[in-house]
Amino acid sequence: MTTAHPAPRGTRPGGRTARTREAVLAAVFEELGDGGYPALSMEKIAQRSGVHLATLYRRWRCMEGLVCEALIDRSAAVPLPDTGTLPGDLRALAHAIGAFYGEPRMRGLIEAVVAAAARDPESATVLRSFFEDRLRTTGQMVDRAVARGELPADTDAAEVLAALGAPFYYRILIARRPVDRALAESAATAVWAAARAGAYTRARPADD
Amino acid sequence: MTTAHPAPRGTRPGGRTARTREAVLAAVFEELGDGGYPALSMEKIAQRSGVHLATLYRRWRCMEGLVCEALIDRSAAVPLPDTGTLPGDLRALAHAIGAFYGEPRMRGLIEAVVAAAARDPESATVLRSFFEDRLRTTGQMVDRAVARGELPADTDAAEVLAALGAPFYYRILIARRPVDRALAESAATAVWAAARAGAYTRARPADD
Repeated sequence: MTTAHPAPRGTRPGGRTARTREAVLAAVFEELGDGGYPALSMEKIAQRSGVHLATLYRRWRCMEGLVCEALIDRSAAVPLPDTGTLPGDLRALAHAIGAFYGEPRMRGLIEAVVAAAARDPESATVLRSFFEDRLRTTGQMVDRAVARGELPADTDAAEVLAALGAPFYYRILIARRPVDRALAESAATAVWAAARAGAYTRARPADD
Repeated sequence: MTTAHPAPRGTRPGGRTARTREAVLAAVFEELGDGGYPALSMEKIAQRSGVHLATLYRRWRCMEGLVCEALIDRSAAVPLPDTGTLPGDLRALAHAIGAFYGEPRMRGLIEAVVAAAARDPESATVLRSFFEDRLRTTGQMVDRAVARGELPADTDAAEVLAALGAPFYYRILIARRPVDRALAESAATAVWAAARAGAYTRARPADD
């Protein structure tokens, strides 16, 4: 797991620093639930978490660092399926992503993170590494599918998983409409058909 | 075409107001080319365009309104293909979108627009209407394909076009890696295979 801002030296996991972190991340989610991203501020997070504003700035540097860490923290809770078939795994993961972003404060969080990355190069780097890690981890389901003979051997696992996630980010950030179960079904069906058609093989044919 | 901020009453198209608008939008692109979104400001746009800061604020209210109008203005230049087949049309449009977002200042612009929509509800509404309009217009290629018998009659044209665009926005905003020709090929191949598999029909089956 990529960590945006490693804990200062000399602190123990589960100690005061860990409790502070939990209180702060919880406050970020509560604030996002109340007023969404436009209303989010370091001051409000300090007030709600009971953590001094100076501590927030010392540890997370800026709001951008804080929202990136919040996304990374919560994404770890999305389970990785292993149903025995790739269409089954894709469908299970699509519904898990759909449930994750079906929550308004998770929508607020991804908006906040993308806005943070646009403004702050350090946050952009953290975000890129985090999604690369996620694609590598979830890509294991594609490697298993290749081993079972479900997909061509030269399938790019990260591209398959990027394609599964893409419709959710489009729906939230661009179309700005609700994430629903139909979107998860459509994404899973689409990626399975496209992967079988060779859309994500490393050496793609130049023509249709 | 959706317009973010209609021209004030009493102004003529092609007149001074139109010239001001062109100078301002050109300055937005030049600034995005120079320093990207993090460096963009109303002050710099005023300086580069030679338009008074007060005029900028009166006409566009805020930076958010300005970047939305800039995206809408430039997107109108992406041509709508009519090659005679849906795979041909999808491929041509995917490469046009790829060329559009292959330019660093266009990446900067879409980042700016998404950040604007996250902060400002009025910009979010403008962005949503704009993309709905685009999907309706580009969706004509799917309606033609259905008429030719290439796709099921209950195919949702807007969903097909959303799926074609989604990988580009994922690449720019989430993966934060370059948009290249391979992405356009992959997107076109994927959407064609998925559409034939029924991933975008209005009444999707509940199971694979």
